[in-house]
Amino acid sequence: MQAEIITIGDEILIGQILDSNSKWIAEELNKIGVSVYQITSIQDNKEHILKALREAKSKSDIVILTGGLGPTKDDITKLTLTEYFDDHLELNLEIVEHIKKMFAKINYPFSDLNRDQALVPSKCTPLKNNWGTAPGMWFHYNNQVTISLPGVPNEMKGLMLNSVLPKLTETFHLPYILHKTILTYGMGESMVAERIEDWENNLPNFIKLAYLPGYGKLRLRLSAKGDYKELLEKRINKEVENLMKIIPDIIIGFDDSETIEVAIGALLSDKKQTLAIAESCTGGNISKMITLIPGSSKYFVGSVVAYQAFIKTLELNVSKELIEENTVVSGQVAEAMARGIQKKYNTSYAIATTGNAGPTTDLTDKTVGTVFIAIATPTRIFSKEYFFGKPREKVIERASIKALELLRKEILKN
Amino acid sequence: MQAEIITIGDEILIGQILDSNSKWIAEELNKIGVSVYQITSIQDNKEHILKALREAKSKSDIVILTGGLGPTKDDITKLTLTEYFDDHLELNLEIVEHIKKMFAKINYPFSDLNRDQALVPSKCTPLKNNWGTAPGMWFHYNNQVTISLPGVPNEMKGLMLNSVLPKLTETFHLPYILHKTILTYGMGESMVAERIEDWENNLPNFIKLAYLPGYGKLRLRLSAKGDYKELLEKRINKEVENLMKIIPDIIIGFDDSETIEVAIGALLSDKKQTLAIAESCTGGNISKMITLIPGSSKYFVGSVVAYQAFIKTLELNVSKELIEENTVVSGQVAEAMARGIQKKYNTSYAIATTGNAGPTTDLTDKTVGTVFIAIATPTRIFSKEYFFGKPREKVIERASIKALELLRKEILKN
Repeated sequence: MQAEIITIGDEILIGQILDSNSKWIAEELNKIGVSVYQITSIQDNKEHILKALREAKSKSDIVILTGGLGPTKDDITKLTLTEYFDDHLELNLEIVEHIKKMFAKINYPFSDLNRDQALVPSKCTPLKNNWGTAPGMWFHYNNQVTISLPGVPNEMKGLMLNSVLPKLTETFHLPYILHKTILTYGMGESMVAERIEDWENNLPNFIKLAYLPGYGKLRLRLSAKGDYKELLEKRINKEVENLMKIIPDIIIGFDDSETIEVAIGALLSDKKQTLAIAESCTGGNISKMITLIPGSSKYFVGSVVAYQAFIKTLELNVSKELIEENTVVSGQVAEAMARGIQKKYNTSYAIATTGNAGPTTDLTDKTVGTVFIAIATPTRIFSKEYFFGKPREKVIERASIKALELLRKEILKN
Repeated sequence: MQAEIITIGDEILIGQILDSNSKWIAEELNKIGVSVYQITSIQDNKEHILKALREAKSKSDIVILTGGLGPTKDDITKLTLTEYFDDHLELNLEIVEHIKKMFAKINYPFSDLNRDQALVPSKCTPLKNNWGTAPGMWFHYNNQVTISLPGVPNEMKGLMLNSVLPKLTETFHLPYILHKTILTYGMGESMVAERIEDWENNLPNFIKLAYLPGYGKLRLRLSAKGDYKELLEKRINKEVENLMKIIPDIIIGFDDSETIEVAIGALLSDKKQTLAIAESCTGGNISKMITLIPGSSKYFVGSVVAYQAFIKTLELNVSKELIEENTVVSGQVAEAMARGIQKKYNTSYAIATTGNAGPTTDLTDKTVGTVFIAIATPTRIFSKEYFFGKPREKVIERASIKALELLRKEILKN
């Protein structure tokens, strides 16, 4: 079963707003076993809507349009659908009553513009909109369903959850779709691909693999489609088990919303251990990542952003001589910073970063992009040197993720 | 001149990621006078890519494809383009050298998969990718330009800014479009709209106004289109001057890339003043925002993320009694934190935050979303209470922006 999502509205095409409606609809459709064949964003224009409807017809069983149902003049979806289905508009008294009631609640006058919203094509089943005035519309002809929804996100979502998804499940015989995401850190797409090549080639043809790269991380997504839920689950779990034997060193977790910060939080909470951070070039970014996780106050004590060298001495007990001897961008200083904050804040672990994020080299002779990361554990302190290139944001982002990656490995050892 | 943007990748169609690339490309194209006719997201599938290319042909002068250029097997854009243009692949030695150099820098082995990335269709002009390994591709036939770019956002953006946009401007006769962005902070869209209503209604019809809202900020973008550059510049500058008389209190700057952090950086650099930050609920986010700006080491000294209450006492000299009397989420504690770090780090200004970002209320009885922000200036210290709702990320983001907004106003006074 395939669907196409058509988003109507010039504001997307001029890059003014991000089309988050389509993402949400696609996710919900996939959950009930409907694949999304295509997402199309088009202009608020009759000819363009007709063209998109015709193109969608050949490939999709379900077409969902959003946008263009409001009371103002540039919203023409309803009239275009009436033409497309060779239909005419009829006043729906139930909708008139609904809009009048909504307006009475907030003391709004009921105008002719609003009455027009209660006009619907005679061939459609109107879908009641409890969150706004424009009804949704459901057309069912020749085994194809065309649905029109308002573009306002909470109205669209309400209509999808209350009417559209249940009606789709009733109308079509849907296959079962199962997704499993494996989150990895610390290795690029092509190196991972080489390591898992044999495993990938041996996947059964009802399981598809996708590589989803991000800064410093790579998600592997398996999708299985079929009629027997239990069988799919069993098989996909077996494939994941096999994969874990091949790349156990880089797998962080399996939840789509899981990140390395979440994984570290779970580990530290379990072990009742704590963390402090001394940041120089990462400027507070690691602390921000850690504290974005709800419940981080259980294990995160605090941090010092020692941007100026004298703060490293004042707060972290890094001696002036050490800085002068090695320069501030050095493994020795990174280790001293980690030791300093671990001791002062009395934590199980500490992270420290010092480097040159660019664009200029400032006070040291170290190349832009050079970062030293130190980790202090209950038993040892060590540091590593990295080169993260440019620009500035990328250096900060990659250094932060690398530091968390090093920390996680140490926590797993202890 | 019309363009179509085609995004290739199953991850968008299953709703796993939001297609922010298309929004960015649409915005950039509009800036140089190219209208976007349609944005289409399609599957990583040869037939589908061919169908989309054929459909795009009839309406668009420019087709930009993103995604599907990585080294792994599910990336088939390049092969499909080769077929579409009835072409064959050739090894490009310049690209081989480029990839080898990139890999040598980070000590990565060069594999056969990477060599395949240097194969390009003979009819295309390769676009050098300084940010990754996959080159962009530019095909120009029958007055239509087809461009293929990697899907990784920073690579796509680098190629667009460095190669694609300049080449489009050279290739086509584009109308002159002038944009001017006015950045405002601290007032919602509808309130700003009311304040500038008369001004907006009196804009000449060749100047269009767009409202671009973001967390805590609102950009107003004026776009003028015409043939006489000087005339457009003169007129748009006059309109901006008039606008500055109406809302001088909320205008921060005029650059599209300008943010409140940049504005503060410029002010502090000019005045040779310094800043320190004591963060609790914002967890390092304000420090991260400040240090993301190149050159921030000129005015930013450092910060303490005092996540646990005892760190507020240990580092910021906030007395235990004050915390017990007022609870840790209070104006008194925020002010004491600001005073503490200003004194200790010897800075002109200090920011402090304490609040409850949620989702649970933790140790205090303060509602989730409550944040106290304190500002210390060379002459006074004050704090304000805010309610930022939920979820957690929004509270942190809004509190950070509000703190910077308060700081900027104080710097302007001193």
